[in-house]
Amino acid sequence: MRDQLLHGLEPGRTAYETAMTVRPDDLDMFCHVHASKYQDYVLAARFDQMKRCYGISMEAFIEAGYGWYVRTFQIEYIRSLGLGDTFTVRTWIQDFYRKGVFVQFEILSKPREKKVCQGSSHYSLVSLKTQRSEIIPDWIVEKYAV
Amino acid sequence: MRDQLLHGLEPGRTAYETAMTVRPDDLDMFCHVHASKYQDYVLAARFDQMKRCYGISMEAFIEAGYGWYVRTFQIEYIRSLGLGDTFTVRTWIQDFYRKGVFVQFEILSKPREKKVCQGSSHYSLVSLKTQRSEIIPDWIVEKYAV
Amino acid sequence: MRDQLLHGLEPGRTAYETAMTVRPDDLDMFCHVHASKYQDYVLAARFDQMKRCYGISMEAFIEAGYGWYVRTFQIEYIRSLGLGDTFTVRTWIQDFYRKGVFVQFEILSKPREKKVCQGSSHYSLVSLKTQRSEIIPDWIVEKYAV
Amino acid sequence: MRDQLLHGLEPGRTAYETAMTVRPDDLDMFCHVHASKYQDYVLAARFDQMKRCYGISMEAFIEAGYGWYVRTFQIEYIRSLGLGDTFTVRTWIQDFYRKGVFVQFEILSKPREKKVCQGSSHYSLVSLKTQRSEIIPDWIVEKYAV
Repeated sequence: MRDQLLHGLEPGRTAYETAMTVRPDDLDMFCHVHASKYQDYVLAARFDQMKRCYGISMEAFIEAGYGWYVRTFQIEYIRSLGLGDTFTVRTWIQDFYRKGVFVQFEILSKPREKKVCQGSSHYSLVSLKTQRSEIIPDWIVEKYAV
Repeated sequence: MRDQLLHGLEPGRTAYETAMTVRPDDLDMFCHVHASKYQDYVLAARFDQMKRCYGISMEAFIEAGYGWYVRTFQIEYIRSLGLGDTFTVRTWIQDFYRKGVFVQFEILSKPREKKVCQGSSHYSLVSLKTQRSEIIPDWIVEKYAV
Repeated sequence: MRDQLLHGLEPGRTAYETAMTVRPDDLDMFCHVHASKYQDYVLAARFDQMKRCYGISMEAFIEAGYGWYVRTFQIEYIRSLGLGDTFTVRTWIQDFYRKGVFVQFEILSKPREKKVCQGSSHYSLVSLKTQRSEIIPDWIVEKYAV
Repeated sequence: MRDQLLHGLEPGRTAYETAMTVRPDDLDMFCHVHASKYQDYVLAARFDQMKRCYGISMEAFIEAGYGWYVRTFQIEYIRSLGLGDTFTVRTWIQDFYRKGVFVQFEILSKPREKKVCQGSSHYSLVSLKTQRSEIIPDWIVEKYAV
């Protein structure tokens, strides 16, 4: 992500939340949510929030010939989720680049909002035709700049 | 499951429903829900309904030293679920045995209630200590006989 | 699968084998392989055997505009696989239909070849363009009739 | 991991390798390996290498009352793996702490050894009884110090 930050554009700082529930197939042999599943939770929350909060669903991206590719992912685990737990995935766009976004997240357990994990991801916009990264078009920047 | 049917016990025919949403990590390379994930949806619905509808959560079973092992599973696929779809998992106990239950299910897509798939599973009650199947105690039969 | 059996065509009875190893992310909270993962093992074995034994890889099917859709799946669980176990997935085409195949499988644990589970699946050939089932072309029947 | 580095102990720099194959259920809707699956590959490689290279299998850890908990995970994605690809997971212990290890990894595609991704993880040794982190006993340090 040695890409140019979009200055002048105020970083979108609105954090959105998605409520989810642990599925039994998410558990590992220690009866905790398997470590890699948290990344799936963040992905599910982003898809939900793209449609519900930003107004461009992943389907709309795909129809427009775009996909988002994950460039980096990092996570710090703080406490575990287990069988039947409900939780909130909060994500926000921390930085805009010409060709991608830097998204941060935290997962909070219910009902006491204790922090389960936190982390971040760089996503690049790619053309599904060329499989190469693309400059984010203005109509997407506008919808995301909230 | 060459086990004795519990005659005199009216089969529990109440069907319970759990509402769920497709997660992006459930999709396969054809952008449909991956075939084996429907079994996970049924499992998640059973866990939800055990707690919410029968009044014995899986955690309560485990604390009492019991687990449910899957003996058979069969499914007929009718139409696919895809990205962002919401659906209902309806399950009911079709037959009671001394040592297990025969559960049927169907998954219906929202909002039009079209049938996505249907099938069934035999589950045996096992002792977590001995890993052997056990006769279902009366207190469980009573809660399940609805 | 109310489809016409291809009489005159001797059913392909050669059973092929794929060796696999349990991955830690396949385990459930009882430290056994999660029930739905066995279907994934069978799928992986079929893909391997399509390429290695029948001489038509799934990639070749996709390039030719075809996919295989799962119509039914049934499985009987006999014993569990656990952490680090190695096993063999044996599959064979039991019946040919004009538009599909009926595949049987069994999974055997190593090194003693004890049966872990057995079952079967109906697959239909579909056109990826129309998403509808198609008559299996002769060139595929020939490769599969082994 | 504000834990004390084990000075005097030369960091274990031997990198071990595990060969693996992409399973069809690892693929996402873009026909690439799903982003979170790479973490599962690294876990599977560590389990394999613990048993085969360090001489203490995960089962041995569990029998001794220990587990390894993931504290952090970070990954940089470079190129994608797809259907049927084979690859190598190379991992090594970069640093030893009193209560944990810092492991680095890279995944290389076959046959040309192109780098697919790279990253690292902090693991803490925990007592399965107390669920709390523990000082790594000498007999484990010795086996790991290779």
